[in-house]
Amino acid sequence: MSENYRSMWTDLGLDLDAHDVLLGVLGNAYQETFLSQKARPEGMSYFDFVMSEVHGLRIKELMDEKAAGRKIVGSYCVFVPEELVLAANATLVGLCSGADFAMEEVERLLPRNTCALIKSSFGFKLGKVCPYLESADMIVGENTCDGKKKAYESLGLLVDNLYVMDLPQVKSETGRALLKGEYLRFKAALEELTGVPITPESLRKAIHTVNAKRAAIHRLLSLRQADPAPISGLDALLANQVFFYDNPERFTDSVNKICDELEKRIQDNIGVFPTGTPRILVSGCPQAVPNWKLPMIVETSGAVIVGEESCVGERGTRNLTAESGQTVEAMIEAIVDRYYQVDCAIFTPNSDRLAHIEEMVAAYKADGVIHYGLQFCQPYIMESIPVEKALEEKNIPCLRIETDYGMEDVGQLKTRVEAFIEQIKG
Amino acid sequence: MSENYRSMWTDLGLDLDAHDVLLGVLGNAYQETFLSQKARPEGMSYFDFVMSEVHGLRIKELMDEKAAGRKIVGSYCVFVPEELVLAANATLVGLCSGADFAMEEVERLLPRNTCALIKSSFGFKLGKVCPYLESADMIVGENTCDGKKKAYESLGLLVDNLYVMDLPQVKSETGRALLKGEYLRFKAALEELTGVPITPESLRKAIHTVNAKRAAIHRLLSLRQADPAPISGLDALLANQVFFYDNPERFTDSVNKICDELEKRIQDNIGVFPTGTPRILVSGCPQAVPNWKLPMIVETSGAVIVGEESCVGERGTRNLTAESGQTVEAMIEAIVDRYYQVDCAIFTPNSDRLAHIEEMVAAYKADGVIHYGLQFCQPYIMESIPVEKALEEKNIPCLRIETDYGMEDVGQLKTRVEAFIEQIKG
Repeated sequence: MSENYRSMWTDLGLDLDAHDVLLGVLGNAYQETFLSQKARPEGMSYFDFVMSEVHGLRIKELMDEKAAGRKIVGSYCVFVPEELVLAANATLVGLCSGADFAMEEVERLLPRNTCALIKSSFGFKLGKVCPYLESADMIVGENTCDGKKKAYESLGLLVDNLYVMDLPQVKSETGRALLKGEYLRFKAALEELTGVPITPESLRKAIHTVNAKRAAIHRLLSLRQADPAPISGLDALLANQVFFYDNPERFTDSVNKICDELEKRIQDNIGVFPTGTPRILVSGCPQAVPNWKLPMIVETSGAVIVGEESCVGERGTRNLTAESGQTVEAMIEAIVDRYYQVDCAIFTPNSDRLAHIEEMVAAYKADGVIHYGLQFCQPYIMESIPVEKALEEKNIPCLRIETDYGMEDVGQLKTRVEAFIEQIKG
Repeated sequence: MSENYRSMWTDLGLDLDAHDVLLGVLGNAYQETFLSQKARPEGMSYFDFVMSEVHGLRIKELMDEKAAGRKIVGSYCVFVPEELVLAANATLVGLCSGADFAMEEVERLLPRNTCALIKSSFGFKLGKVCPYLESADMIVGENTCDGKKKAYESLGLLVDNLYVMDLPQVKSETGRALLKGEYLRFKAALEELTGVPITPESLRKAIHTVNAKRAAIHRLLSLRQADPAPISGLDALLANQVFFYDNPERFTDSVNKICDELEKRIQDNIGVFPTGTPRILVSGCPQAVPNWKLPMIVETSGAVIVGEESCVGERGTRNLTAESGQTVEAMIEAIVDRYYQVDCAIFTPNSDRLAHIEEMVAAYKADGVIHYGLQFCQPYIMESIPVEKALEEKNIPCLRIETDYGMEDVGQLKTRVEAFIEQIKG
């Protein structure tokens, strides 16, 4: 990234030395993981550019927006409705982070046995290396898992603009009412932050923008049903990850352009791996940038990932919001309906998720499922055991993996993944 | 325990061999931990008897109640209102268990990184060694922590009478409404189970019975404010534990009798340890029978435990329910008010708990706090870090302990506890 950004990063309060280290590691990992892939779609050059500028140009854009009076809202979860943020004339960016940073400092505030994703979010704050976090005018936490719920109590002492959204644990009438009440409270908080009241027009437009973004990424994901797969799991995951950072309209256009290319590939029977390559569905915890560990292992072991049943994947993007509402009230009902379908493991029971995994296995012609669990993520790790059992009862092979962001277990994971691929080939 | 119970245990489906092993271990542990103590109050002989008959006479009583048409309700949490259970002509017994059993089988259903309390509850079921669980007509689970919430999904496959109660995560108006709605739903479920409608009379009587029980145990706990302490922390914990198993009226009478004796002791300046013995408040996770590990270590290391800020302790028993309500509706409001004050770490924020710890430190003249965390109990372990920080800012020494039910770390814990006691003496 250009030297021009250094003063911007300084203004944001970043630790430039630490940030240089981060960018160096990120650049190398990207080079080794992504640019070394064969037969990548040409359209992925857009994402290469986005990633090379993820702490540069995109932050510059956000700073320009701020200079023009627009507010930036940061979020850690797919339950934070981008529709409301956009309608209040603000920009939503994802804050989840996928790398260990400042772990010694983090473990003074959080137990060692906390999931890597939560520790990472603290590490990026304590290490002063996340320009998204530092540029956000409001940081939205949410009561999903115990880990995040309790961590926000400590994060609230590190930042002065944390807003915490409550969430239901059960999909009952009361649960839905709670979600709706929280979305209405969030709407009011956004309006107060931006000074811009949400109108039927602005909300309709916002719903349309977010729907278009979700439809585009879903179009891309659906094209992976083809054999040979026209795009690698790594590249598709990257698109899912950039979903949280990029300008929505530009993201939608870029993804649709890649889809045009992929459709051509499918027509021409061109893929990133040979026809008949074992096909894997990854299911479980979100994989945030730059957590590319598992797909890197899988796709260098003779298999291709054809789907992500994950918040950074279909769980997060699956459903669209109905666009028929005429009033703000009706549109918020539609938004509640849409988000209420997200089948996160925080819900009990959460049987929809198993049904979705099975649907995805069928749609993507997956030969097996790798359940990706972040160590100490209790909801997904606990749910993985009945999920594995149910899949195996339907003769769908399943490998349960529990890992973190460290690289110490890559060799061991590769051995297990290779054995699993051999199993599903047999 | 007498041979007479073997046919009862067989009828309940217990694994007699495994159960014999459990009773043997329990008996030995009780002998070594409790009966070896010096200067115990005479009234503790009641609890010695209760413990010697905990799987015998008490179960026989429950079976007799069942034979007479009364229902038994089992619970794992202090949020299950005994008032409603009694008012519907049923008996509530605690099902939490404090020992590892059938761990190999358990870890096929639950991740290894699950807290010992949850794994233990599964172990007692899978090992067929818990007569309380087997005699229960209804088992009540509750959405407290992620661990329990998700574990109940699997427990529901092992038992055919699981009822799950939802709980709020935030003490807001919505949160209180959720709790009230769940208590009303529970009332209906109890009435359906027993066929006995809850009336103003039965509910008033039940509230009175439970209040008397709580008042008695609270009277006992308050007497520990004296120096020298008239009762050991081990014996007080035992009373707190039996609270969950015993017949309420008999428990109340027995505890009050011990209190009379303790008051006499205080008058005569008699204690279980010398005046000036370092005084410890234990705060954190519940300690269920036979989990006596921490107090055993503390009280054989030159200190006395003077209070438990715990669900098996003052957090669970602190508040009484107002008895002024005239209608079932008004009494249920009072019950909601009472339980809503429980400051479990599942709530966010949970600042009441810190205030209560500080109050208890002052009231019990504690020299320091040991925060007791069950490994992988995310809510309490996460909360322990800000709690420790806040206490130390007020010059209250705090030792954070994270452990399980195993005995492997006893030596290491003893070293840390001894060092802490030296620190607070200095």
